[in-house]
Amino acid sequence: MPQSQPIKKAVILLSGGLDSATSLAIAQSQGYECHTISFDYGQRTHSELVAAERLSKEMKALSHRVMEVNMNQIGGSALTDDQIDVPTDGVDKMDIPVTYVPARNTIFLSFSLALAEVLDANDIFIGVNAVDYSGYPDCRPAYIEAYEKMANLATRSGVEGHQLHIQTPLMALTKAEIIQKGIALGVNYRLTVSCYQADELSRACGLCDSCRLRKQGFWEAGVVDPTLYQSS
Amino acid sequence: MPQSQPIKKAVILLSGGLDSATSLAIAQSQGYECHTISFDYGQRTHSELVAAERLSKEMKALSHRVMEVNMNQIGGSALTDDQIDVPTDGVDKMDIPVTYVPARNTIFLSFSLALAEVLDANDIFIGVNAVDYSGYPDCRPAYIEAYEKMANLATRSGVEGHQLHIQTPLMALTKAEIIQKGIALGVNYRLTVSCYQADELSRACGLCDSCRLRKQGFWEAGVVDPTLYQSS
Repeated sequence: MPQSQPIKKAVILLSGGLDSATSLAIAQSQGYECHTISFDYGQRTHSELVAAERLSKEMKALSHRVMEVNMNQIGGSALTDDQIDVPTDGVDKMDIPVTYVPARNTIFLSFSLALAEVLDANDIFIGVNAVDYSGYPDCRPAYIEAYEKMANLATRSGVEGHQLHIQTPLMALTKAEIIQKGIALGVNYRLTVSCYQADELSRACGLCDSCRLRKQGFWEAGVVDPTLYQSS
Repeated sequence: MPQSQPIKKAVILLSGGLDSATSLAIAQSQGYECHTISFDYGQRTHSELVAAERLSKEMKALSHRVMEVNMNQIGGSALTDDQIDVPTDGVDKMDIPVTYVPARNTIFLSFSLALAEVLDANDIFIGVNAVDYSGYPDCRPAYIEAYEKMANLATRSGVEGHQLHIQTPLMALTKAEIIQKGIALGVNYRLTVSCYQADELSRACGLCDSCRLRKQGFWEAGVVDPTLYQSS
């Protein structure tokens, strides 16, 4: 890229999972200078945070931040409340599952919005997906559109006429399509952690909703699953 | 109130300042069971957090939470960044001031939204004000409307058909009118701290934008200013 090009900056929500790693790769392929942000929100496993840091480094993000957000004080989810068990008996498409963390994406996007404003970035990438989305309300296109509208009224940039965009490059893709896209862009999925209850060696349980969707995705994509499982 | 009445629950954003204390008093006067939430976001002074806790206790809120939100990692404001001075030379109505904290209300509302969902509260009270509002973009009615719309798409309650409301009872009031309303409801403003740089004895500087607006408010309301100032 010639040096005279203006720098396009983006904030990338990077959980350390398969989707957000792909989202980072897509943003980079579109020429964005990428700044990653992860959240330590009292989740059961720290493996995904370790993965996020490693992915940021290996994928050469310009900066990486971990925001500490203590969701335990709020509770209400199997992912942040020790009193609620993570279900391992399959994905139920009808209900919002107990692994739903109240307002999680709203909280994460809000920190990303603050960072975008400070960095003067006009784009925020979030790896949400409406196809294999586990039933979370804050992964739907209508939600993202409403968030973007709000964000443009919330900030200095909105007042000054810049347009902020919430980019959701994975929204309409199946897990298999996400994986195929990531493979084409050179994502090393071995470095990603999707499991809700990975162990201290970052090995996945293979049984939670997130593991099931991921496994099935690799199978449907015709790609050998590189995930380290606890039982293997 | 007869015991058979359904309980109306509300989450109240309580900074410990004049506006949010009045907002709490208004919610209580409307029959809400009030749950207060404050934010430790790396602000220069902890006096307002001490004030918020004391106000919650004295005004008999049902619960009080302090969320730790480290905004220092993001920076960009005189209130959270030691490298930027708090201006003390008067309110400039034309620009967004350096005391603006990027996306602050969006972040605070997002935690409140999570708490509202867990508590099953349909109302969130925030003491924003479009009259004496210091030029912050995230205090405008259009912003609040957009936030409410987003919030109803973000959460379980939105999916299940409950309607969540962001209540802004102070939006159209002058600082003097807010004070008059609070006095009528019995708010003890001596307990509130508005100053951006109060000292360790919770005494206000009397010079920052927030102090100036508050002072003028008491004067216009014809109410003796109960604030403890550093110079007095």
